Amino acid sequence: MFIIGILSLLLIKAILVRNESFTSTTHLTQLLKTEIALAKSLETHLKQEYERLDQIEKFVNVIKDEIRQAQSNEEYYFGNPVNSYLFIKHLTADWYNIEELLPTNFSKNLGDKWIFPSFEDYTGSATGLLRLQDTYKLNTSQLANGEISNKFKSKRLSALECYDLGRVAYTSGDFYHTLMWMQEALDHLDKEQNKTSINKIDILDHLAYATSQQGNVEHALAVTEELLKISPNHIRANNNKIYYETIIKNRTLSKQQRKGDT
Amino acid sequence: MFIIGILSLLLIKAILVRNESFTSTTHLTQLLKTEIALAKSLETHLKQEYERLDQIEKFVNVIKDEIRQAQSNEEYYFGNPVNSYLFIKHLTADWYNIEELLPTNFSKNLGDKWIFPSFEDYTGSATGLLRLQDTYKLNTSQLANGEISNKFKSKRLSALECYDLGRVAYTSGDFYHTLMWMQEALDHLDKEQNKTSINKIDILDHLAYATSQQGNVEHALAVTEELLKISPNHIRANNNKIYYETIIKNRTLSKQQRKGDT
Repeated sequence: MFIIGILSLLLIKAILVRNESFTSTTHLTQLLKTEIALAKSLETHLKQEYERLDQIEKFVNVIKDEIRQAQSNEEYYFGNPVNSYLFIKHLTADWYNIEELLPTNFSKNLGDKWIFPSFEDYTGSATGLLRLQDTYKLNTSQLANGEISNKFKSKRLSALECYDLGRVAYTSGDFYHTLMWMQEALDHLDKEQNKTSINKIDILDHLAYATSQQGNVEHALAVTEELLKISPNHIRANNNKIYYETIIKNRTLSKQQRKGDT
Repeated sequence: MFIIGILSLLLIKAILVRNESFTSTTHLTQLLKTEIALAKSLETHLKQEYERLDQIEKFVNVIKDEIRQAQSNEEYYFGNPVNSYLFIKHLTADWYNIEELLPTNFSKNLGDKWIFPSFEDYTGSATGLLRLQDTYKLNTSQLANGEISNKFKSKRLSALECYDLGRVAYTSGDFYHTLMWMQEALDHLDKEQNKTSINKIDILDHLAYATSQQGNVEHALAVTEELLKISPNHIRANNNKIYYETIIKNRTLSKQQRKGDT
């Protein structure tokens, strides 16, 4: 106990010496606030960075799996139009999203010797796939489930992949295919475990518009109402709902009028 | 079988249509090389980035633990000179290393309102600790093991932390403390599970030099020989070995000469 007593005394002196020599406890308490702020900022940085790397890693896993499959038999693999569409998509639309998560010098460091497909190659491959679908009357569901034939299997498309294909049709004003692929995206989304990749609202929004453009206003209204159940304040959907209801109402009125005329 | 046959035929046609429409299989094979190179570059990036984040995370865990302990009783915590030395070290020397792993705008985004200690505060707190050690004749091992007293406990210093303290003594030409703390670093390194944090060669290099500066050439030679066992081509160590051997040889000769003279 005596020794402990002496040591405690020494330490109290020690604190005094330390305080004189470089910094006071008040100063340290102030610096502790700096350390708390620093820890918080670093944790935010780590969280954002791990999310970023997670996205990149998912992309790497997709293309590594693709490389493995393609290398086993290139002719056979690329012979499947769904495979080659997805392949081009990975090196264009998907890669552009990943590129944004990388340092600006990353693509430069890759060098000039690697040829990348163009965005036109991507839309071209999508349009080609949709044309094939028509020409050979391929069922959208079967195509999306990779069941073109027993011989030519391909992977089951994700909801996002169906949506992206529908988006290409949509941007080229092809509402017939937009409708089919958005419906397929919806079906796949319902069955998917991880639903974070694509928002149901986005699918329904495109589906409603494409349906109305194809002339089925009643169905467009039903889809819009489904969208509003999820997102009641969706401005465009609310406006569209009124618009579709007006069309249906006017149609019913003119029908009744015609009936009344006869 | 008939249906499969037709579908296969359709797909062969499909391939032709696809080839005409946007890209040939040869082109896809070429693009596969791009994808392979891309996957490789991205994997390298991920590896480097995960290593970087791992270093930052380790630092965050250290300072979070420190914050938790300090906040429970600031006066008591900072009253321990080992704690306050380490605290200042984390916000200076260690933080400078972490800062290099962060985007350049990170520190700017922290804002001006946080006060950081200066590098002089760091060397000051180290020198203060060494002076305390002398004044109160505190045993280096006990200090390094956090056993200043039963009342004032602090964490056990890592080999790297002992080395860093020795480095401050070394850069200020204080070879007495360099020797003690490098010896302590060596002892801790031998007991540590994870020895990657500091290289044994660096410790031995400093230890040998400090020992020779304290006049113990025989021990300096022994330490240098231990270093050369690990790194036989270490240039400075090889030169020093010759130098120390010459000193010892000349000393022995002059002793013998003196004996002969008497």
